[in-house]
Amino acid sequence: MQARLEEVKTQVQATLDGAIATLPESELRDAMAYATVGGKRVRAFLVMESCRLHGIDARAALPVAAAVEALHAYSLVHDDLPAMDDDDLRRGMPTCHVQWSEATAILAGDALQTLAFQLLTSEVIGDAEARLRLLRAFAEAVGANGMVWGQAQDIAAETADRPLDLAEVKRLQRAKTGALFGFSAMSGALIAGGDSAPLGRYAKALGLAFQIADDILDVTGDEELTGKRVGKDDAAGKATFVSLLGLEGAKAEARRYVAKATDALNPYGEDAENLRDLARFVIERDT
Amino acid sequence: MQARLEEVKTQVQATLDGAIATLPESELRDAMAYATVGGKRVRAFLVMESCRLHGIDARAALPVAAAVEALHAYSLVHDDLPAMDDDDLRRGMPTCHVQWSEATAILAGDALQTLAFQLLTSEVIGDAEARLRLLRAFAEAVGANGMVWGQAQDIAAETADRPLDLAEVKRLQRAKTGALFGFSAMSGALIAGGDSAPLGRYAKALGLAFQIADDILDVTGDEELTGKRVGKDDAAGKATFVSLLGLEGAKAEARRYVAKATDALNPYGEDAENLRDLARFVIERDT
Repeated sequence: MQARLEEVKTQVQATLDGAIATLPESELRDAMAYATVGGKRVRAFLVMESCRLHGIDARAALPVAAAVEALHAYSLVHDDLPAMDDDDLRRGMPTCHVQWSEATAILAGDALQTLAFQLLTSEVIGDAEARLRLLRAFAEAVGANGMVWGQAQDIAAETADRPLDLAEVKRLQRAKTGALFGFSAMSGALIAGGDSAPLGRYAKALGLAFQIADDILDVTGDEELTGKRVGKDDAAGKATFVSLLGLEGAKAEARRYVAKATDALNPYGEDAENLRDLARFVIERDT
Repeated sequence: MQARLEEVKTQVQATLDGAIATLPESELRDAMAYATVGGKRVRAFLVMESCRLHGIDARAALPVAAAVEALHAYSLVHDDLPAMDDDDLRRGMPTCHVQWSEATAILAGDALQTLAFQLLTSEVIGDAEARLRLLRAFAEAVGANGMVWGQAQDIAAETADRPLDLAEVKRLQRAKTGALFGFSAMSGALIAGGDSAPLGRYAKALGLAFQIADDILDVTGDEELTGKRVGKDDAAGKATFVSLLGLEGAKAEARRYVAKATDALNPYGEDAENLRDLARFVIERDT
């Protein structure tokens, strides 16, 4: 799985670099390139594996993988802004607005969202109907019904008069992280016109396991390895899986979701072994 | 033309309201609704007329008209942010970040961009090929090749060591305003699969005439009527058509572009009378 992840990283980076290289030379373009370097590429990996499971070749899958990573990069750039989470370190480098400026970071994020949609129109992905199925599902996942709604709830919770309870944290994270995980995992089925429900269930559980692991790393993690500041949630008095369940309780909950995720893959048999490995990886990672 | 514009305003507002009403109740949704109220709806008008000229009925055109206005609203919300143009008044109301918060304004803008793409996937617009032609042209127009590039150049000019020259201002405005004008005016031809070149030429000239009129209104306009602050460009020492050509020179240049715009409509004969009226309106308006 690690070798496969490295291969995906290289291919997706090349696709993103290629798309950004066609843009007019400017600080905006440089900031977009800067924001799309690095990362674990979990979402891209989900796309590539989902496509492989549905007989979609890598050449068709790559623009979709690049699209989800461009979208994810935009969400990080905007989330890191001073008016939002106010982070100065991301993927081991200064955040986009620290490296450039707030204005450039806002615009680079904006243009990365556009680029994500643009990549999903690529003819190589499949026929027009297939691309439209992707575009509709993507818009549903990443806007005010999904990812942005989750981020807005996360920000609102900071000034609320009480911390969120467990059900609210799960609902928020299903939107903020889970919606794009879901799109990524279902993308192959969407292109092929197949049943996306098992991969949808997998992604829902995987997204929660991933977020619990993130909350655990915010407590136990090493800035050198994670490439981002740790201890921020606790300092902000934010409700997380760790604050709500305790460290051991959170670890148990993460394992429970990993089991749920791998169970959802039963219909795919051995073909889904990489996705099972990924589910185990997301809670064992130290980055 | 004024009656037709009022009709378009009502229809587009209803389409936007309908789309936003389906979102989960939240401050985010309220801010999106707030940001999409009002405006001259010039871009929506271009879409509706372009579609009419190509035999596309209003029901199919409306999601496209709503998409360009959602995109335009997002660009205004982000342009008005403190890190960008730092405006407190827009369409006669407090700007989105003043009314809500910077975080909510960033997220509302983000989600409005997503909504714009989502609207363009609407089945009622036409077959999958037609919608993909729209989606590709839209992404090209509004991202780092078009509108966002123009806005980034505008911001960069504020801290440059010399003001922009006329050629640079035109190039910037062709991207910042012109690209979305172009998409809007060509949308009917894109859906129908017809020749979009004449409407492209019309929109290019119209966009510049519109921007020159904006620069003139920043000098001669009334805040009560324009609904936004005036005198800002001059106070910032920004290169505009007025600073470069003088007030009378700018007015003459605007008239020249209006003539160019109306000439481009010759292939459409009398059917394009509303678009000719619009070109004259954009330089005569006081709002």
